[in-house]
Amino acid sequence: MAHIDLGVDENEFPGIRGPMRFRPETAKPLNELAEVLLRAPHSLSPGERELIAAYVSGLNECTFCCGSHSAFAAAQLDGGMHLVDQVRADADAAPISAKLRALLRIAAAVREDGRKVTAELVEAARGEGATDVEIHDTVLIAAAFCMFNRYVDGLGTLAPADPQAFVAHAQRIVEFGYGR
Amino acid sequence: MAHIDLGVDENEFPGIRGPMRFRPETAKPLNELAEVLLRAPHSLSPGERELIAAYVSGLNECTFCCGSHSAFAAAQLDGGMHLVDQVRADADAAPISAKLRALLRIAAAVREDGRKVTAELVEAARGEGATDVEIHDTVLIAAAFCMFNRYVDGLGTLAPADPQAFVAHAQRIVEFGYGR
Repeated sequence: MAHIDLGVDENEFPGIRGPMRFRPETAKPLNELAEVLLRAPHSLSPGERELIAAYVSGLNECTFCCGSHSAFAAAQLDGGMHLVDQVRADADAAPISAKLRALLRIAAAVREDGRKVTAELVEAARGEGATDVEIHDTVLIAAAFCMFNRYVDGLGTLAPADPQAFVAHAQRIVEFGYGR
Repeated sequence: MAHIDLGVDENEFPGIRGPMRFRPETAKPLNELAEVLLRAPHSLSPGERELIAAYVSGLNECTFCCGSHSAFAAAQLDGGMHLVDQVRADADAAPISAKLRALLRIAAAVREDGRKVTAELVEAARGEGATDVEIHDTVLIAAAFCMFNRYVDGLGTLAPADPQAFVAHAQRIVEFGYGR
């Protein structure tokens, strides 16, 4: 049970969905941020950007965010959940592009502390073809999930035990986006 | 110099202000989030909420965010910068309300890891009169500054060496708010 009375059945609105119903004034910009970062037209596909979100959430051990964004990534990547699992288990060995691998290294550094992002990490990503917008958005996606993960866990919200619970939600996100 | 070409003179637009000009699409929800969390009508004053932001940014050692939000807090608190400095040096001993002290303890836990927020910390805040909205917003302010701090430092932006640089900016924030 969450630390505060969210006014919803948490089994129906698990994870971030409870606090978003409790406080629609903050839910609005949070959903807009997710929509711009993860779904708006971009040189990185929605699946790639959701993979960065899932990867960071996994490193932060946030069960709800990692489960949900892994499902959202899997639904939009050719490799599906098998690829997501490979990246989460060993990003260095997973069959992804060298550019995405370099961006994941930046995301992991941001997660730890922004100051861990070195000129070398940025140059390596640029050497694999990453643009300034891709580097910027990778930093902000990783930073944003350090917020979302803490928001979800800091309020003690419920995370569904069964990963299948996220699959139906993934279809809604892919079709309609965040906050709809 | 920032890790990417922000397209601005960083001395004129230091810290988060460069990335916000570089990427207005993400700046919009980020500014809206700051406005709702730190300035919208609330049972915690803008000064108290800016103090939570400054305190978390200080724990994260983010020079730009700590300097700017300390100035924004000082401009809106009776105790001014002296009180902000006392809170940042030793929140347990600073002359603030017992409720605000209990909320700062929750914010410090969120900063470390959302899972560090215990039922005991929440009960202690509630015992000092904190409402569910105040607890929710404290968690989200602390989480949001874990994002803002990583965003600013992850891009290697410039932080003004002179804290006085934030004072003029504080007056604009107090008068006009975020994103204007």
